[in-house]
Amino acid sequence: MEDELTQHHISQQFNKELRELRNQVLNMGGLVEEQVTNALIALINNDHDLAKQVYSNDYKINALEVVIDEESTRILALRQPTASDLRLVMAVIKTIPDMERIGDQAERIAHMALKIPLDAQGSHFIAIRHLGEHVQKMLHDALDAFARIDIETALKVMHEDQKVDQECDSISRQLITYMMEDSRTIPIVLNTLWSARALERIAAHSCNICEYLIYFAKGKDVRHISMEQVEEQARTPRK
Amino acid sequence: MEDELTQHHISQQFNKELRELRNQVLNMGGLVEEQVTNALIALINNDHDLAKQVYSNDYKINALEVVIDEESTRILALRQPTASDLRLVMAVIKTIPDMERIGDQAERIAHMALKIPLDAQGSHFIAIRHLGEHVQKMLHDALDAFARIDIETALKVMHEDQKVDQECDSISRQLITYMMEDSRTIPIVLNTLWSARALERIAAHSCNICEYLIYFAKGKDVRHISMEQVEEQARTPRK
Repeated sequence: MEDELTQHHISQQFNKELRELRNQVLNMGGLVEEQVTNALIALINNDHDLAKQVYSNDYKINALEVVIDEESTRILALRQPTASDLRLVMAVIKTIPDMERIGDQAERIAHMALKIPLDAQGSHFIAIRHLGEHVQKMLHDALDAFARIDIETALKVMHEDQKVDQECDSISRQLITYMMEDSRTIPIVLNTLWSARALERIAAHSCNICEYLIYFAKGKDVRHISMEQVEEQARTPRK
Repeated sequence: MEDELTQHHISQQFNKELRELRNQVLNMGGLVEEQVTNALIALINNDHDLAKQVYSNDYKINALEVVIDEESTRILALRQPTASDLRLVMAVIKTIPDMERIGDQAERIAHMALKIPLDAQGSHFIAIRHLGEHVQKMLHDALDAFARIDIETALKVMHEDQKVDQECDSISRQLITYMMEDSRTIPIVLNTLWSARALERIAAHSCNICEYLIYFAKGKDVRHISMEQVEEQARTPRK
């Protein structure tokens, strides 16, 4: 009887640890989302103070990555999880480097924002406003899907990725035309081009987060397969 | 006695599995290195056939990533490793996404190579030949350090990264000057600029691999700290 109670206590403690691990990932996600939002505002509004703030906040994301990694390893070593508990820890271990890299891309966008002279006429930054909003929505939905273990939202995010790639290609062509028409604009327009590329990367990392979620919830690795195969895998029962 | 024999057998089998896991990572590393080499040759020699070969080989790297991930998860679930065995599995789980992304960057360089008309005069591609050789050496050394668990080589690779960043900045400035002098060159020179950026990413991923190796060998997380701190951590005894 005492053994059973001890077991029950250990199991309750373990569940609490897993819940806390997920919460830490969600906190990290919240920070990352805030950084992307602020980096975009800094770029579009030419707000150097906000760009500097993004720069000085990146360490928080890095610190969380290290803490969550340590906690995941601790759980693996002491709790030796199996089945869906192990898949959760694996999904967390996979997710946090992608989140950290989204943070890096936000920092990169902030870096571009700082390179723009405060008196610059920024009409070409408007060109990426729509792309920015699109990618922010994808990131938000990916984190929301992770929080609610919502496969349908995850699939929706993965569908959006192709559109983002097309949008990014179209912006690139437009920006190249700008540069060819007036070569003096090249240095500044290149910053917009780099920022568009950073947004494309954020969209790709958001999709990765969705893939890890599907792995956790369904026990299926959906990387490197077509969108049709992903949907089929994600909508059939767990292995 | 029989129990001891069984334990011995299980432990031998487990060691064999860990050895095989490491070998698979080294195989994946070999493939990734080959892809980067071929992508660079394709870009510099304007060799479309070789670029297409890089394209069609990327699936091999992706497939290996999935296999190694499955094997790592299987080992965690069935063998419940601790201490340095757990650190090895964690280092493998962390390393393979970086390797896969190096493969993606090789594919990206091959994509740039295919965009260059076969009759193009490629003097600006020569500009990244040196950067390419530098990054290839870093990748080679990172994989070699991983194979031989060689901390000093890993530290050397991490030192090179700053030089690569400087080299990449200098090439970017040079290429921007080309574009400003003759705006007709913009579309082709941009491909070189993207390729230089891809090489910078490959160097960064190579450094990540070195960080995971130091974690495995020394039990210390050396991400997000200064190079001086990395060296201090890596050269002091294991925790």
